[in-house]
Amino acid sequence: MTDLLRADRYIEASELGLDLYRGVAELPIVSPHGHIDVRLLADPAARLDPPGRLFVTADHYVVRMLYSQGVPLERAGLRTHEGGEAGVDDRAVWQLLADNVHLFALTPTGLWLRETLATVFGIEESLEPGSAEAIYARVEEQLATPAFAPLALLDRFHVECLSTTDTAGSSLEEHRALTDSAPGLRIRPTFRPDGVTALDAAGWRDALSALEAAADREIGDYVTFVEALAERRAAFKALGATATDHAATSADTTRLADREASALFAAALAGTASRADARRFEAHMLNEFARMSSDDGLVMQLHVGSLRDHNAPLAERFGRDIGGDIPVATDWTRGLRPLLDACGNDPGFGVVLFTLDESTYSRELAPLAGHYPAVSLGCPWWFHDSAAGIDRFLDRVTETAGVYNLAGFVDDARVLTALPARHDLWRRRTCGWLARKVEAGFLGEEEAHRLAWELACGLARRAYRLDA
Amino acid sequence: MTDLLRADRYIEASELGLDLYRGVAELPIVSPHGHIDVRLLADPAARLDPPGRLFVTADHYVVRMLYSQGVPLERAGLRTHEGGEAGVDDRAVWQLLADNVHLFALTPTGLWLRETLATVFGIEESLEPGSAEAIYARVEEQLATPAFAPLALLDRFHVECLSTTDTAGSSLEEHRALTDSAPGLRIRPTFRPDGVTALDAAGWRDALSALEAAADREIGDYVTFVEALAERRAAFKALGATATDHAATSADTTRLADREASALFAAALAGTASRADARRFEAHMLNEFARMSSDDGLVMQLHVGSLRDHNAPLAERFGRDIGGDIPVATDWTRGLRPLLDACGNDPGFGVVLFTLDESTYSRELAPLAGHYPAVSLGCPWWFHDSAAGIDRFLDRVTETAGVYNLAGFVDDARVLTALPARHDLWRRRTCGWLARKVEAGFLGEEEAHRLAWELACGLARRAYRLDA
Amino acid sequence: MTDLLRADRYIEASELGLDLYRGVAELPIVSPHGHIDVRLLADPAARLDPPGRLFVTADHYVVRMLYSQGVPLERAGLRTHEGGEAGVDDRAVWQLLADNVHLFALTPTGLWLRETLATVFGIEESLEPGSAEAIYARVEEQLATPAFAPLALLDRFHVECLSTTDTAGSSLEEHRALTDSAPGLRIRPTFRPDGVTALDAAGWRDALSALEAAADREIGDYVTFVEALAERRAAFKALGATATDHAATSADTTRLADREASALFAAALAGTASRADARRFEAHMLNEFARMSSDDGLVMQLHVGSLRDHNAPLAERFGRDIGGDIPVATDWTRGLRPLLDACGNDPGFGVVLFTLDESTYSRELAPLAGHYPAVSLGCPWWFHDSAAGIDRFLDRVTETAGVYNLAGFVDDARVLTALPARHDLWRRRTCGWLARKVEAGFLGEEEAHRLAWELACGLARRAYRLDA
Repeated sequence: MTDLLRADRYIEASELGLDLYRGVAELPIVSPHGHIDVRLLADPAARLDPPGRLFVTADHYVVRMLYSQGVPLERAGLRTHEGGEAGVDDRAVWQLLADNVHLFALTPTGLWLRETLATVFGIEESLEPGSAEAIYARVEEQLATPAFAPLALLDRFHVECLSTTDTAGSSLEEHRALTDSAPGLRIRPTFRPDGVTALDAAGWRDALSALEAAADREIGDYVTFVEALAERRAAFKALGATATDHAATSADTTRLADREASALFAAALAGTASRADARRFEAHMLNEFARMSSDDGLVMQLHVGSLRDHNAPLAERFGRDIGGDIPVATDWTRGLRPLLDACGNDPGFGVVLFTLDESTYSRELAPLAGHYPAVSLGCPWWFHDSAAGIDRFLDRVTETAGVYNLAGFVDDARVLTALPARHDLWRRRTCGWLARKVEAGFLGEEEAHRLAWELACGLARRAYRLDA
Repeated sequence: MTDLLRADRYIEASELGLDLYRGVAELPIVSPHGHIDVRLLADPAARLDPPGRLFVTADHYVVRMLYSQGVPLERAGLRTHEGGEAGVDDRAVWQLLADNVHLFALTPTGLWLRETLATVFGIEESLEPGSAEAIYARVEEQLATPAFAPLALLDRFHVECLSTTDTAGSSLEEHRALTDSAPGLRIRPTFRPDGVTALDAAGWRDALSALEAAADREIGDYVTFVEALAERRAAFKALGATATDHAATSADTTRLADREASALFAAALAGTASRADARRFEAHMLNEFARMSSDDGLVMQLHVGSLRDHNAPLAERFGRDIGGDIPVATDWTRGLRPLLDACGNDPGFGVVLFTLDESTYSRELAPLAGHYPAVSLGCPWWFHDSAAGIDRFLDRVTETAGVYNLAGFVDDARVLTALPARHDLWRRRTCGWLARKVEAGFLGEEEAHRLAWELACGLARRAYRLDA
Repeated sequence: MTDLLRADRYIEASELGLDLYRGVAELPIVSPHGHIDVRLLADPAARLDPPGRLFVTADHYVVRMLYSQGVPLERAGLRTHEGGEAGVDDRAVWQLLADNVHLFALTPTGLWLRETLATVFGIEESLEPGSAEAIYARVEEQLATPAFAPLALLDRFHVECLSTTDTAGSSLEEHRALTDSAPGLRIRPTFRPDGVTALDAAGWRDALSALEAAADREIGDYVTFVEALAERRAAFKALGATATDHAATSADTTRLADREASALFAAALAGTASRADARRFEAHMLNEFARMSSDDGLVMQLHVGSLRDHNAPLAERFGRDIGGDIPVATDWTRGLRPLLDACGNDPGFGVVLFTLDESTYSRELAPLAGHYPAVSLGCPWWFHDSAAGIDRFLDRVTETAGVYNLAGFVDDARVLTALPARHDLWRRRTCGWLARKVEAGFLGEEEAHRLAWELACGLARRAYRLDA
């Protein structure tokens, strides 16, 4: 195991790569996008999940790989809708991971696991079927200590700021509590309204009700809907939010006439909106949210290209987000045109684009970011947030868009203990990549140090307006 | 020439790469997909074609390159429909290859040629216009010896098992004879029914007649058609088949209502099926074949994305398969959804996917294989079965799908003498790739040895159910 | 700065890479496609623009990057339609570049700038805010000398031949003058008829009028239109043209019936042609131009995949070509089929394909070029004419198409001083790439030298028929 943790791991460059990395390794973590539950942070008594749940059940990357090799989801700790609250043996879930750890060779999941055990828990012994029990005990023991309380971990990880993801209907009470009790923490909410714009989703009415409650008004028509959204954005902003987040299968942002948008919303309320209606309304709302961002300055994040719940039979049994989301090709150039026509030249507007279609890096995204003042490029996302994925991203976008049109790194983490490993891999890979550019004569050393710093935290601060 | 054949060629890694390669270089060849004619194997008196035909006329990679540089197909030994049986001067065909050997620099075709001459025929001298005649004589002489009889070559190449590709209407008599005479050889048929599902193809009626003959029944409707197919699958399975093979331009697998499928089949019998009808029927049949595979356990291979006979004027003169097939973009995610909805979670079902659209590696194929238990990924195919193509494949799929969701290597060979070069290139490249991962800290050495073995033969045995 | 200009920069290979490069570094420049204004070459008194205009305003790569970071186009020296002829402070434009030079780190634009200053102007000091003024003075001073007169630069750069790009309606008077005064210069026109085939473009009638004037006839119908085009092609050919150039958003080349083409042309004259009509007419004309090329032997260049003027509000203010062109996905396989059905097997026809969709390199373009005698592949273009872009191109096309189906390098330069840097980067990268292939055992050294020469100038001479 020792040599897997050698100082220059994942860097793949000469000594300069390690030098560059050393210059950024200890910089604070800037985390403007992720999925840490704010309740965990706001409640001083909250503790992380036990090992099996923390490393397996809560991690959709792990669950999907196990399932792909025939492991039933129930064994990974998941419960079907009708499964009730039958107990899960957390040790058995952990043992399942250990028994299948070979599946994760060469995946970022395997790397994060190894790194997290080593650097967060101090366990350098490799996880194997035979070592599972002993490692479980050591992890469990540490998780129970005050040093592993959520806020203590944030301190230990040098987290400068961390944004959570919150629905449009969130009451934000935990964020309010956090702001009151520990204003220096800079934990920020992010406004994610997908639930109320997907008119055909099963949970739409519930999401709308939550929005009504949060906005304290009945939403009976489209105009009120938009007003409520704008109000909630203001409430988010008041609690430190600098960004919104939007997921869509397609990049379409065609604006509808107000009358048409109103009619679609009314149809949804009446339960008569079709699937196609819902897609047109979503596209329209992306355009509308860009307009709102132009107004209030919240940076718009756009995550495009995942066909959710591809595995319909599984989604029916276990619900959403169990690994059955599969990407599709994306037409950013035509899709974004209406939105950029409206706001792309507005200096007050910022939009960060995340793709699951790597063929668009050099074909569409870098040309868009290298032209429009409003556009910056989000880091490799989801399936592409990996060592080779980072290289492909940098190779394909920087020659056209440069470095300063990138939005830096976001970890997208769901589990607090995963933060260091994710930022560390990004820093190692970007430094290795920069060092190779210096070695090949493209870049001076001094500039490489500056760019390493930008990639580690400068760009994210700027793109997400965190300095303000 | 000597240094082109140095021990660590094509590996591109430090000493460890060569170590890994040495550990798998002599492993038996597992060849679960290819196009060696079973008649060659079943007839003890059969001999390989003469050198020009073997290395040029029979190799569509060679023919296409020559044609692209203005060489008429007739000079490469091909005959037009109306060309009759005019004699071909095999020495002239060979000389043509030698005169144009520079065209193949940096192509896998050039590499396989060099490797095959060196390692199968012991000829390390480079093929050039001036050396052509002498090399021809040496190749011809060896081909005439018993050591170059087909079965002798299989022994010499350590071929553990080899699957041929056979139409749905094949009588399988050669396979029966082989099973009877040499059961240890493990030469297996593969069920390939494309000919009978392409309702609009010129040869459809002939293919259907062959199926009728093989199934010993008249096929007057869709239900009987499906019954006959199921029967033939059972016959294939009885002779050792573990897999079926299906080629399609699109990945569409939309299922039709039985009534609709019946109507389309009836229209085809009546000669009134349109091109669009034929495509819908093909998509339906892919879905139906998946259902059959769920029943009988034959692994389904799906080769998608070639627009066949792109060069219509040439196809009209020379027939199919003369190099005029050009790939198109593929939408695996939406295309496969109906098939995977039906069978993707079935532990008894296995499907191996082959693509000609590399942009789907990381976007669609790895996410599909990394989730669905039924899906594994076929190796780089056709235009992508090359040194750099192998790297791109591994780089793009393993981070999401891991290694254990791959189906190993298939050589897709049409010519027996090409087998060693193709498997050897795969083994060298996978070992070099693994060694670089070890050097960069992603992987331990011991695990690299295990994965090298898996990639060389373990994965193929498992995905194609060859251990059973 | 010194080490950024070390001898083996950008090569990224062992000593052999530098050896290969040294063998081609001083070869003459063959430049069969670019946008140098012929008036600059034909007028002995003409001088290059001043530094700010030369390096910033005239370079759309520079302008787009500045704009993407919020710099108003006016500051880069551009003028709006209504802006009139207000004076531009060229020194301020140059200072703007220096103040923002960090944006160009790792971009080809930054590399060309550094290389051009160093190798053309002898300025190795790095451009920075503080050095801008002094460097401006040195550049300005040199530009005023006879050594920097356009034709003197061509001599100094060893330009063997250079093709300009000229509209169908060009009078070609400058080309005629050049041919008369300096026949050895081999400056050739290229026939670019896009302006007269885009029936819905704002400038269509003007372009048609110019064609009428040049062809000295009234063009009242489609037949006359085609005759005029054929005549102008003959005039271009008489002045040394060997090629035509065509840009299109889509690769569609569907031929219309003559009657239909005539009707569309008549509708355009009557002002009633729709946008869809215009696209169908363009597709048809690509097919028709291929037919003409079959007749007259002019090599057809096809540049596909840019959605022009994506940023409509900006195009409205500043006009075309200000950086708001964004690529889209291209379907070459289906799009080119009608054209290749008609002419793809014709030995007299040659077409060079340029793409902005890198996913088509291995999927479509290499298979097309590796089969059709008429097709060769243009080098990486526009956003992809970069160090990493060159690698991706070579990696993805050569294994299928070989080297001899490539059309070599074209610089596409708009500014004369950029020529050496662009050809030099191509030569360095191709040599480094070849050296790595030798080191890995794919290629012999001698063959690598031959291929380096082919890539530097041999292939371009052949594909563009410049030897004739």
